[in-house]
Amino acid sequence: MATDNQENSIGLKQVWSWLISFVICTAKDAKKLGEEDPRRVIHSFKVGLAITLVSLFYYFDFSYQGFGVNAMWAVMTVVVVFEFSVGATLGKGVNRAIATLLGGGLGVAAHRLASFAGEKIECVILGMSVFFIASAVTFCRFFPKMKARFDYGLLIFILTFCLITVSGYRDDEVIDMAQRRLSTILIGGCATVFICMLICPVWAGEDLHKYTASSIEKLSIFLEGFGRAYFQVSNEKNQENNVASLDQYKTVLNSKGIEDSLVNFAKWEPRHGKFRYRQPWDQYLKIGSLSRECAYKIDAINSYLNSDAQTPVEIQKKIQEPCTKMSTECSYALRELAMGIKTMTCSLSADIHIVNAKASAKKLKSMLKNGRPEIDLLEIIPTFTVASLLIEVVSCTVKIADCVHELGSKSKFKSPDPVKMKKQTS
Amino acid sequence: MATDNQENSIGLKQVWSWLISFVICTAKDAKKLGEEDPRRVIHSFKVGLAITLVSLFYYFDFSYQGFGVNAMWAVMTVVVVFEFSVGATLGKGVNRAIATLLGGGLGVAAHRLASFAGEKIECVILGMSVFFIASAVTFCRFFPKMKARFDYGLLIFILTFCLITVSGYRDDEVIDMAQRRLSTILIGGCATVFICMLICPVWAGEDLHKYTASSIEKLSIFLEGFGRAYFQVSNEKNQENNVASLDQYKTVLNSKGIEDSLVNFAKWEPRHGKFRYRQPWDQYLKIGSLSRECAYKIDAINSYLNSDAQTPVEIQKKIQEPCTKMSTECSYALRELAMGIKTMTCSLSADIHIVNAKASAKKLKSMLKNGRPEIDLLEIIPTFTVASLLIEVVSCTVKIADCVHELGSKSKFKSPDPVKMKKQTS
Repeated sequence: MATDNQENSIGLKQVWSWLISFVICTAKDAKKLGEEDPRRVIHSFKVGLAITLVSLFYYFDFSYQGFGVNAMWAVMTVVVVFEFSVGATLGKGVNRAIATLLGGGLGVAAHRLASFAGEKIECVILGMSVFFIASAVTFCRFFPKMKARFDYGLLIFILTFCLITVSGYRDDEVIDMAQRRLSTILIGGCATVFICMLICPVWAGEDLHKYTASSIEKLSIFLEGFGRAYFQVSNEKNQENNVASLDQYKTVLNSKGIEDSLVNFAKWEPRHGKFRYRQPWDQYLKIGSLSRECAYKIDAINSYLNSDAQTPVEIQKKIQEPCTKMSTECSYALRELAMGIKTMTCSLSADIHIVNAKASAKKLKSMLKNGRPEIDLLEIIPTFTVASLLIEVVSCTVKIADCVHELGSKSKFKSPDPVKMKKQTS
Repeated sequence: MATDNQENSIGLKQVWSWLISFVICTAKDAKKLGEEDPRRVIHSFKVGLAITLVSLFYYFDFSYQGFGVNAMWAVMTVVVVFEFSVGATLGKGVNRAIATLLGGGLGVAAHRLASFAGEKIECVILGMSVFFIASAVTFCRFFPKMKARFDYGLLIFILTFCLITVSGYRDDEVIDMAQRRLSTILIGGCATVFICMLICPVWAGEDLHKYTASSIEKLSIFLEGFGRAYFQVSNEKNQENNVASLDQYKTVLNSKGIEDSLVNFAKWEPRHGKFRYRQPWDQYLKIGSLSRECAYKIDAINSYLNSDAQTPVEIQKKIQEPCTKMSTECSYALRELAMGIKTMTCSLSADIHIVNAKASAKKLKSMLKNGRPEIDLLEIIPTFTVASLLIEVVSCTVKIADCVHELGSKSKFKSPDPVKMKKQTS
């Protein structure tokens, strides 16, 4: 018995210590999540506030038999519609409101149509209309354009239509029910939208803007460190720390999903703050796609960074200077472009760096044109492949710069400060 | 007046013709969507059927005052839970059921706790509990692991908790309400799951399996056509048709999102059909990531396919054979691997092709080792870059093959048919 008790207490202690370590782990993760983006904490409290306000409104109202059961639609609307960014919230809210209106209207019509028929046929008509409308609208959700912007609306349309058609109430009751449902949804939706927009709003458009700039910056970080890392690594092979910090560009490779959804949300947002003009959101998609193209090339370059191939020192010395120059000039140009996007200024110094990068590429080419190496081709190929890929990166940078300039002219970026310009060029 | 009428009728005619062309356009798009994947049409009818059945059940039941208003939860469950694949439907269904149970339980507890207090304090306790639970659970939705698998459950948890806590009913009524809500959700959920699983089920696991195979196949299509296209294009420059068909690999570049969500759904699915064993879904993610890595290299190669650089004929002739051989052997190996995944057979002939590809790479390397070209480096660099990237593609193919073999051993692929094997090797 004593040993049994001992075993039990040991088991309990294990469970207890496991539980404590789990809680500590979760708390650490939560702290990290909150520190990464404090807006997450604020968003959580905003949701709590909105739900509490609507709940209490409903709670007190219920005592006077005002809204009754329908009022839970208000709470439900807040829970379901409140999203992280204003755009996503507005998108869902508008979708929900319009879909409820249309679905409710069509439902009332179907209900009235069916009520003209006899009791037996009524049931058949209702069943058939629910079947066909639900099937047709479900199929509509497969259209890519509908899926991107109105998926939630189509869902709510089916829901409202079915609930009203099959409610089994009398005609006047149905209209009364549809009205009350719509008004409660409006109350919930308005509370959500106001709290979302007025207390520390998170704009998807701004996030997209920053995300695009940071993608370009990540490419620039790789290119800045690359020259040093590549030529030193093959000389010294002890730059592990240096190489690790170059991996940031990898997140750009899979950026399409995030960008697509941010653009989709941003399109729902009204003009605000620095986005006073009709923002050309699709231009951000173009820049994103070019950034990814550049990242693919950088990924190909990166695989040579870690290879063991030894290039003869003489060749390496010869091309080290133009290659490093190309890479760093591209890096500066990209950083300028990223800064330009961040501060919404037309960056002119990016063009200077691009001209420099192009000049280095030309220099490298002419160097190669005259060079007739007396060594094994095999040994020099990896290095020359890197050089060739760098030339491709230069042309990619040019494309990105053009695209960013187009964005600048479309969304009316500020002209650069002439005083600052002078300092930079001098 | 006459001209007014004429103008009106012309305006009407325009609207009418626009409407007709819109309808025709939509019908064509719908036909294309249906032909691309007929399961979409079947899915739409399945959703229609499920909603109709549950609606009618509720309609008749309502006449006898059985379920009452709560029954609409059943219809709502069907509309919201029914997804395209079994995995997604099960995931949402399980999330909804468990979240309703937990949220309801906690809601009843909070309700009882508050009812012990006086009427004034009750309201404060309820409001605070709603605020803190809603905020905390909303924050939980930011944890990446929770978001991937339990996002919907967390939403429903908040919803149920708030509805029950703030319902304002008496204690016994609340329990009754929670019970009824749970039972109607179970009815809706069961109807959904049965119809989804029994009528032409769409398994996310199978889709993932096919998608992985087709990604590898797309890489193989590029590599098969590449040798011919590259060396002929730079000779003849009139292979436009040929080049266009090589672009299929581009969908692989952005495959991460689709693969992640399919794996997420597949994990909810029970074992079935050919997936009798515990399927290593994460292995598919590894294969997908390697396929993308290979696709990045292919993208870098592809940019040289369309460049205007002219390589001297003598050099080109020299490396044409090993390059084409490398590319086609990799292509055959990848095709074999894709076929192996599709038919769930351990493909041994892929290894033979890989050995051939490696041999060609070696041959090319030794050819380069001995070659001391008497021409401009600049002219040969693009071609040698392509060759170097092809060597990288070979090592990528080796990695993919290893990963596919690992998948084969983990999910017990069939051994190849010895008769067929003999035919292939002879």
